[in-house]
Amino acid sequence: MSNKSALVISAHSADFVWRCGGAIALHASMGYDVTVVCLSYGERGESAKLWKQEGMTLEAVKSARQVEAENAAKALDVHDIKFFDLGDYPLEMDREAKFKLVDVIRAVQPSFMLSHSTYDPYNTDHMYATQVALECRMVAQGWGHNPGEKVLGAPQLYLFEPHQTEQMGWKPDTFLDITPVWDKKRAAIECMQGQEHLWDYYTRVAENRANHFRRNSGGQAGGRKAEYAEGFQSIFPRTVDEL
Amino acid sequence: MSNKSALVISAHSADFVWRCGGAIALHASMGYDVTVVCLSYGERGESAKLWKQEGMTLEAVKSARQVEAENAAKALDVHDIKFFDLGDYPLEMDREAKFKLVDVIRAVQPSFMLSHSTYDPYNTDHMYATQVALECRMVAQGWGHNPGEKVLGAPQLYLFEPHQTEQMGWKPDTFLDITPVWDKKRAAIECMQGQEHLWDYYTRVAENRANHFRRNSGGQAGGRKAEYAEGFQSIFPRTVDEL
Amino acid sequence: MSNKSALVISAHSADFVWRCGGAIALHASMGYDVTVVCLSYGERGESAKLWKQEGMTLEAVKSARQVEAENAAKALDVHDIKFFDLGDYPLEMDREAKFKLVDVIRAVQPSFMLSHSTYDPYNTDHMYATQVALECRMVAQGWGHNPGEKVLGAPQLYLFEPHQTEQMGWKPDTFLDITPVWDKKRAAIECMQGQEHLWDYYTRVAENRANHFRRNSGGQAGGRKAEYAEGFQSIFPRTVDEL
Amino acid sequence: MSNKSALVISAHSADFVWRCGGAIALHASMGYDVTVVCLSYGERGESAKLWKQEGMTLEAVKSARQVEAENAAKALDVHDIKFFDLGDYPLEMDREAKFKLVDVIRAVQPSFMLSHSTYDPYNTDHMYATQVALECRMVAQGWGHNPGEKVLGAPQLYLFEPHQTEQMGWKPDTFLDITPVWDKKRAAIECMQGQEHLWDYYTRVAENRANHFRRNSGGQAGGRKAEYAEGFQSIFPRTVDEL
Amino acid sequence: MSNKSALVISAHSADFVWRCGGAIALHASMGYDVTVVCLSYGERGESAKLWKQEGMTLEAVKSARQVEAENAAKALDVHDIKFFDLGDYPLEMDREAKFKLVDVIRAVQPSFMLSHSTYDPYNTDHMYATQVALECRMVAQGWGHNPGEKVLGAPQLYLFEPHQTEQMGWKPDTFLDITPVWDKKRAAIECMQGQEHLWDYYTRVAENRANHFRRNSGGQAGGRKAEYAEGFQSIFPRTVDEL
Amino acid sequence: MSNKSALVISAHSADFVWRCGGAIALHASMGYDVTVVCLSYGERGESAKLWKQEGMTLEAVKSARQVEAENAAKALDVHDIKFFDLGDYPLEMDREAKFKLVDVIRAVQPSFMLSHSTYDPYNTDHMYATQVALECRMVAQGWGHNPGEKVLGAPQLYLFEPHQTEQMGWKPDTFLDITPVWDKKRAAIECMQGQEHLWDYYTRVAENRANHFRRNSGGQAGGRKAEYAEGFQSIFPRTVDEL
Repeated sequence: MSNKSALVISAHSADFVWRCGGAIALHASMGYDVTVVCLSYGERGESAKLWKQEGMTLEAVKSARQVEAENAAKALDVHDIKFFDLGDYPLEMDREAKFKLVDVIRAVQPSFMLSHSTYDPYNTDHMYATQVALECRMVAQGWGHNPGEKVLGAPQLYLFEPHQTEQMGWKPDTFLDITPVWDKKRAAIECMQGQEHLWDYYTRVAENRANHFRRNSGGQAGGRKAEYAEGFQSIFPRTVDEL
Repeated sequence: MSNKSALVISAHSADFVWRCGGAIALHASMGYDVTVVCLSYGERGESAKLWKQEGMTLEAVKSARQVEAENAAKALDVHDIKFFDLGDYPLEMDREAKFKLVDVIRAVQPSFMLSHSTYDPYNTDHMYATQVALECRMVAQGWGHNPGEKVLGAPQLYLFEPHQTEQMGWKPDTFLDITPVWDKKRAAIECMQGQEHLWDYYTRVAENRANHFRRNSGGQAGGRKAEYAEGFQSIFPRTVDEL
Repeated sequence: MSNKSALVISAHSADFVWRCGGAIALHASMGYDVTVVCLSYGERGESAKLWKQEGMTLEAVKSARQVEAENAAKALDVHDIKFFDLGDYPLEMDREAKFKLVDVIRAVQPSFMLSHSTYDPYNTDHMYATQVALECRMVAQGWGHNPGEKVLGAPQLYLFEPHQTEQMGWKPDTFLDITPVWDKKRAAIECMQGQEHLWDYYTRVAENRANHFRRNSGGQAGGRKAEYAEGFQSIFPRTVDEL
Repeated sequence: MSNKSALVISAHSADFVWRCGGAIALHASMGYDVTVVCLSYGERGESAKLWKQEGMTLEAVKSARQVEAENAAKALDVHDIKFFDLGDYPLEMDREAKFKLVDVIRAVQPSFMLSHSTYDPYNTDHMYATQVALECRMVAQGWGHNPGEKVLGAPQLYLFEPHQTEQMGWKPDTFLDITPVWDKKRAAIECMQGQEHLWDYYTRVAENRANHFRRNSGGQAGGRKAEYAEGFQSIFPRTVDEL
Repeated sequence: MSNKSALVISAHSADFVWRCGGAIALHASMGYDVTVVCLSYGERGESAKLWKQEGMTLEAVKSARQVEAENAAKALDVHDIKFFDLGDYPLEMDREAKFKLVDVIRAVQPSFMLSHSTYDPYNTDHMYATQVALECRMVAQGWGHNPGEKVLGAPQLYLFEPHQTEQMGWKPDTFLDITPVWDKKRAAIECMQGQEHLWDYYTRVAENRANHFRRNSGGQAGGRKAEYAEGFQSIFPRTVDEL
Repeated sequence: MSNKSALVISAHSADFVWRCGGAIALHASMGYDVTVVCLSYGERGESAKLWKQEGMTLEAVKSARQVEAENAAKALDVHDIKFFDLGDYPLEMDREAKFKLVDVIRAVQPSFMLSHSTYDPYNTDHMYATQVALECRMVAQGWGHNPGEKVLGAPQLYLFEPHQTEQMGWKPDTFLDITPVWDKKRAAIECMQGQEHLWDYYTRVAENRANHFRRNSGGQAGGRKAEYAEGFQSIFPRTVDEL
């Protein structure tokens, strides 16, 4: 019998590390096969440090970004990382690119999906990625798309935490305790040589999210002693047998 | 060791039946002790049929409503039903009434709470009840309120489905399969002699919510075969170990 | 057979003039009996010009404001204007005051009601008046409130245009052509001796609202030639036989 | 003199039946010429039952869906039904397809238009259709588009009820009594052989919307005795001569 | 040393006049170099008066609109006005057009940018322009776009006031006193020969915005005596050294 | 000539430290007289550590909290700190208490005010304080309240950052660089002996807000090198002479 699986759709090749590295490593540790799709390398827009080097080229930036992402993926026990190399700033996806993403969704058959916030005025690639994620989730559910393939069920789409959180209309409804895998997330973060200014930033985010985990699991009466956590917003309602 | 418990805060004495009767009976069947607090009988505002009878008095309406609610509670295996008799249309609660509710919250120590939507222009008692529920939840968490008592943890407050759903800004994020206890909910509904016009209405709501349960548990690929369901909106984020 | 009727609930004694004077005069001209309830005179908060006069007293301000409002009401063919004299800044209504308002609502049996926007951070009396209007509308519908009286049906509550419109979250869904009664509205406006700085302001509002009337009745193809209009936001859905 | 007219823009060929079949039949009975544009057949995404048959092809699905839609249109007394066959999952419209829709809008000169909710994370084709409907309404109003043609006025765009209503941010502001034509809507619904699981679902929706019609037309005092109704959300404000 | 600069992105060639003509002239008077980009002439959708003339052609409309816009720009002391001539109704921008706008943004290095509201169901070109403005602002910030060019900092994007203000979800957070340059704005307005029906409309808007300026600068205690003002909504937070 | 001044309205006696201690110290360093009003001590709800001590009494808690707050105020160079001792959990203010707050507002004549977010389901005292702050700001502006006193102008009301930021619907539009006074804020924080678990939490908040300050002042091009910052949301629009 195959493992449970999850799918991360990342606009640029570093996004999955900061925003849901803990969720990836934690679910990997529980036996999930986690696949990450990097739609672009963030080669034009999110590689400032590389571009400041003498004689830098687009290909060299992409290579460097790919190595960093692969290293981070390894640190997080990612099952498979795919680079779509669609270009960034702006990211654009035609019908062919969307269907390639549908193929991955169907192959993975994820229990849940992860992508960006639905609004981001600083980085329109992010919200575009989520728009496409919803579109491709829909296509993957259609019986008439590549008839004969196994259609997708109804996995949750979780929106991971954006940068400059409050500007994005993002409201977390789920906090995940990532304390057991924090070392892996920090190791993955440190693979991002080009964005060292964010290492401590996202460590602080994780520590403060743990405070929220404790408050929401116990109020003033205590609560679970999480030390690091990540927050997520759900697009779809849950179906449960117990409240 | 004591049972798990849940607490329903109902503005009027019939609200808990239509809106979360299934959740009550289902959790009772799982061993929860479910307590229901009826802040008023809905004697002035929600008892039109009784008032149309010759010679009706306020006390007679209240008695009739209490009997109906007690019968419904019995049908749903409610552990305890309390009538605060605070008056309705409008419902008003002073500090003393609030502290009486805090006493119940602390005594019950609910795993989760249930109350009305946060907006209801048709029935301001409903949104007032929720406002007070949040206020009393806060007080129950305070170490300085009746020091020495066990303080409340951080139970979720679920908002059950209002009438005229879409007008209330209510968006369900959780669907509960109540198929196993549907007969109990229907029996409780039929205890509401004064509101027979709503029996089939809420049966249809439950059937359509089951469609949503199926869609969200399986998309076009099928999904769990719920026949009756209820929807709920969460106020607070969840804390989890798996997405 | 009695006339159709409408009810305006005005936090302060001048509000009805600026915000729905046209609607009042227009419906009066169609045979409606329009009743205006002024919950306060706006004597403390909206009478700056009077208070700048030497030796002014609270009673003198209230008298002056009442005279102005009565004159404006006459200019608008108001059927009945009632002064509740509940005080302003802040306006507060206890159960007795609310039931007095319920009495008026039931006596008038309005086809529609008019009050303030639901949000106003500049003037909390305004949003409080609307909150109470909804609460009293509910009580007036209850069969157990003063049993034997005729209960209220389901009149629309229209929110008239606030000052500093865009700050209030107010979005008009209905534009009313008040061209035929503009002279009456302007005359009523000029009764407000203490707020002369607003005469032209609200004339300009009416002219620009007429532009919106034309655009929404005809687009670039023309549209109805309204010269003055007022905008309103509905709280409740309409029930119709034709779209 | 020509009849009044209305235009329905339906992303997939069955949408118009569930969501506004009553409005169509009712207005047809009042003498409106109602045109329906099906942008796609929903052949890939909304035809699961057909695709489960052995040897099914895209063309066969489209044919079957067209026949169903034509039968339903006939049952509803649709004046004209047009199939744009633009493909679904995802639906995409280039400038040429948009201008083809503009041509229809101008030819019909509708008194009002009907389309989907502005948000639908389950089905991005739906919200895309509405986005294009607004865009094409704008183009149809422009004097410089095919100069010499009669430009469009300012018809309302009503958003009909989506599936999983509350997830879509859809709030109905208009309820239409479709009791007189219910039999026609049910007959049209039963033309949808491939989606039999939705027949009773949408019957229950219509019955519960009738409850809302009654409540909003009469409160606890009664109200119009609608048995079946449909709800709609308006994009644009109304222009009226009486509130 | 070069002047400070600002950049206006206008969907059609007249938008900048009505919506931010005062801001342009005022900043020009303070020494700013203000550049205006007209993405289209509004030749198809916003030139009704011209199209009603016998024998009008698209090129003739565009020429007339360009002359009007150039005259208005001169009246406002615009530093540079660029016509992208991308077509309107609908406005569409491919990657090349976007990069051309990025080139302008980088060349101008604006202290702040101005564009349309983020929502406009009447005119989808307007909201599309703002969407592209955000996208191009992002690209202009990317170190990998045309490496070697000076990258953009973080200028505010102000949304200027739309027509039919309240329908657009636009909420001004900044009022600018344009009294000193009102004559220039009125002169620019009067260059718009084809839209004379809007001259007084926007004069009234400016006068009423001045009322809001006074109220927000002084409450009932007075406030700055602005006679004409414009309102703007900010997309991004401010960074300050004093509240 | 008197100094400029600012006023902080704090529901409980520690709130001003975590949420705007930097703003207080910074403005004090610029010569502002900053007054802090603590409506309650947070003695019942926010003093868990004290209540866990043997034999604790309400008076002892209040005394301890007052000493902590006074020490923190001193560390921040607060000009005046006032304790209204109105009780907490829930905080309630009658007309007399409100007028006492109005007296302070008028005496201080603040250039700007600071209070809590408008929504907080965890702590209803917080949102109640803001509601009252708006109400009292309005009263303080009224010429008829204590005629002869100097009426209030139109100071901004800034909402400081709540705990569990994203749950509150709070969106900062203003970031203040508090680097020069960080040592004072940290010293004030360390006065809060009963809430040591929050010291590092709010240090991390300040560090991450500094990241936002840098990003919004310079994008990827750099930006001001703030190390600590605080965020604020404005209720009212600004009135400016330059964008």
